[in-house]
Amino acid sequence: MAKVYISDVGMTKFGRRKESLQTLMYEAYAHAATAQQPEFDAIFVGCMNPDEFVGDSNFATLIVDHLGLYQTPSVRIDNAPASGSAALEQAFFSVASGHYEKVLVLAGEKMSGLLTSIATRILSKLIDKYERNTGATMPALAALVTRRYMHDYGLSREELALAAVKNHHNGTLNPYAQFQKEITVEDVLKSKMIADPLRLYDCASISDGACAVILTSSKTDVKVTGIGHATDFLSLQYRDSLTSFNATKVAAKRAYERAHRQPKDIDVAEVHDAFTILEIVNPEDLGFFKPGEGVAALINGKTGLSGELPINPSGGLKARGHPVGATGLAQICEIVWQLRGEAGKRQVSANIGLCHNIGGFVNNNIVTILESC
Amino acid sequence: MAKVYISDVGMTKFGRRKESLQTLMYEAYAHAATAQQPEFDAIFVGCMNPDEFVGDSNFATLIVDHLGLYQTPSVRIDNAPASGSAALEQAFFSVASGHYEKVLVLAGEKMSGLLTSIATRILSKLIDKYERNTGATMPALAALVTRRYMHDYGLSREELALAAVKNHHNGTLNPYAQFQKEITVEDVLKSKMIADPLRLYDCASISDGACAVILTSSKTDVKVTGIGHATDFLSLQYRDSLTSFNATKVAAKRAYERAHRQPKDIDVAEVHDAFTILEIVNPEDLGFFKPGEGVAALINGKTGLSGELPINPSGGLKARGHPVGATGLAQICEIVWQLRGEAGKRQVSANIGLCHNIGGFVNNNIVTILESC
Repeated sequence: MAKVYISDVGMTKFGRRKESLQTLMYEAYAHAATAQQPEFDAIFVGCMNPDEFVGDSNFATLIVDHLGLYQTPSVRIDNAPASGSAALEQAFFSVASGHYEKVLVLAGEKMSGLLTSIATRILSKLIDKYERNTGATMPALAALVTRRYMHDYGLSREELALAAVKNHHNGTLNPYAQFQKEITVEDVLKSKMIADPLRLYDCASISDGACAVILTSSKTDVKVTGIGHATDFLSLQYRDSLTSFNATKVAAKRAYERAHRQPKDIDVAEVHDAFTILEIVNPEDLGFFKPGEGVAALINGKTGLSGELPINPSGGLKARGHPVGATGLAQICEIVWQLRGEAGKRQVSANIGLCHNIGGFVNNNIVTILESC
Repeated sequence: MAKVYISDVGMTKFGRRKESLQTLMYEAYAHAATAQQPEFDAIFVGCMNPDEFVGDSNFATLIVDHLGLYQTPSVRIDNAPASGSAALEQAFFSVASGHYEKVLVLAGEKMSGLLTSIATRILSKLIDKYERNTGATMPALAALVTRRYMHDYGLSREELALAAVKNHHNGTLNPYAQFQKEITVEDVLKSKMIADPLRLYDCASISDGACAVILTSSKTDVKVTGIGHATDFLSLQYRDSLTSFNATKVAAKRAYERAHRQPKDIDVAEVHDAFTILEIVNPEDLGFFKPGEGVAALINGKTGLSGELPINPSGGLKARGHPVGATGLAQICEIVWQLRGEAGKRQVSANIGLCHNIGGFVNNNIVTILESC
């Protein structure tokens, strides 16, 4: 298996953007590819639902066309909100196989062109049809998880808010983040109720944005050392637990095995905090903390920028924003910048980083480990 | 690069099916996997647009769930009507890299659940937005190509109909084909006008169906020896030619190079005859015949079941049916059956076969070469 390295990365500012999705992808590509000959063996496009969010099908070809890279093979990868990391995974296989030597991975989504109610309806199709038809939405499922975690581990509403406060703080240091303002626990508790006990500031936003990553078989200073991927029951009701997710645990185990690493080796992580409760549950499932101890790590600053294991230095989905298909690749960009010492005011000390991207409601997850070399 | 073999294949009958898309995929999987332990390192799902055709997102997980293959990594591949072959391509990379040893490729589409006018509108989103907004549809673009080919090479309306007649004949010998009846040139010429000069019997159908292919690194009797993939301008108006397509020519060149083969080595081919004119143009672009000579090959029976180079022994998209995401993998199934001598009444003599699958309107194409070994 050929080794796979990352050369350049780039992204757009996330937020409510006026540009088309293909223009956002071009912006991310141009940001990544400044030092590159615009020649790639293939393009892998991660995007969850351009058909409905922006009304374009045949999207892989549209991107080739917009970038002027005619003849280059191109394919679109959909893995729900884990489409960005899934595109990286497929691109990784193509280079690891020796079939290709240099490939472009693009990921993005444009969600703000629709009414929020319509975007929410599109997102709800990620949920099992029977749960969906009883009224379940993504925030409603996250609320169930939150209630159960509160019951099992004594998490308080105020403690939960700290996840949003931390990530909004990190977001103020990230020029690509959608939200660049500090918030307080009080702000979270006063924000609009979405699905009891989750309020507006507990939920990732509707957002637009795109990212680009160039993978190569030529040695660079960042190597992809392990990718793990696992699925679970589509429906939440059949899972083993409401406060711990097999798709994360198995994906993490597979990634650690590929990379010959353990949780204690990880210096920095980007985890999929689509809801504040996931900022607590994900690090537990990734093996960083024992069940129920994710809260303490948050409270005592262990996962803050100057803590032992900084989590979501970028601001995470909460503050960076969550254009669904883009998120997994945004995590990769952030970890590459952290490993290269290019993360500006949010820089932490790290040689090994981990990205954790969730598809669906925690049922199709990908864990990627990157290392300095 | 590890060698990649095909073990088992299976498919559903194509046509207007009452079952859900996931049930069709299960049927194809069960057909393929009779001799298999139901354990796969990953599942690659080719499907063009489940979000709109059947109203389900997070489709890769839904398939894992429906097949009961929890924890297995799964991803959806969209490459417009070349989604089936693109799923095979991505699966090929994963096995060729050594990352996985045995993977399941599924591809399918369910289109008949919607009004034909709505399905047509969904399909039209494959076309460049500016062409689409001037009223272009897929049949309209194919009609332009037909008119130009008639002008350049003197193709007659009656000769064109022979492509449909041949493929409907082959379809009568294929139990999986949507249409199992002979038609005459007169039937074609009397059928409803769709886009002048193309009539109903010149166009592939709205269809439902699914296919399954199991790829493995363990030696079997069929090897994937070459995959080539190429794109072109999204818009038809910018192409070099209206009667020859770069995306096919370049994809074919790449596939032949990978397989160390030439057009003359191919014993049997499945080509993407979404419209009758493509049954003539594709073999020329694949290097089987010189420009303008595809018609003669059709007229003199060279591409018939008992000809020198049988094309679309399955009945092609025209008679087998064209559930868009499934088509590329249906071609693979047919060639595997032909190489194994399992093609029943439509059996031809072949050791090397080629599949040609088109995404969009001939702008994102994949050519796959399979060989007996």
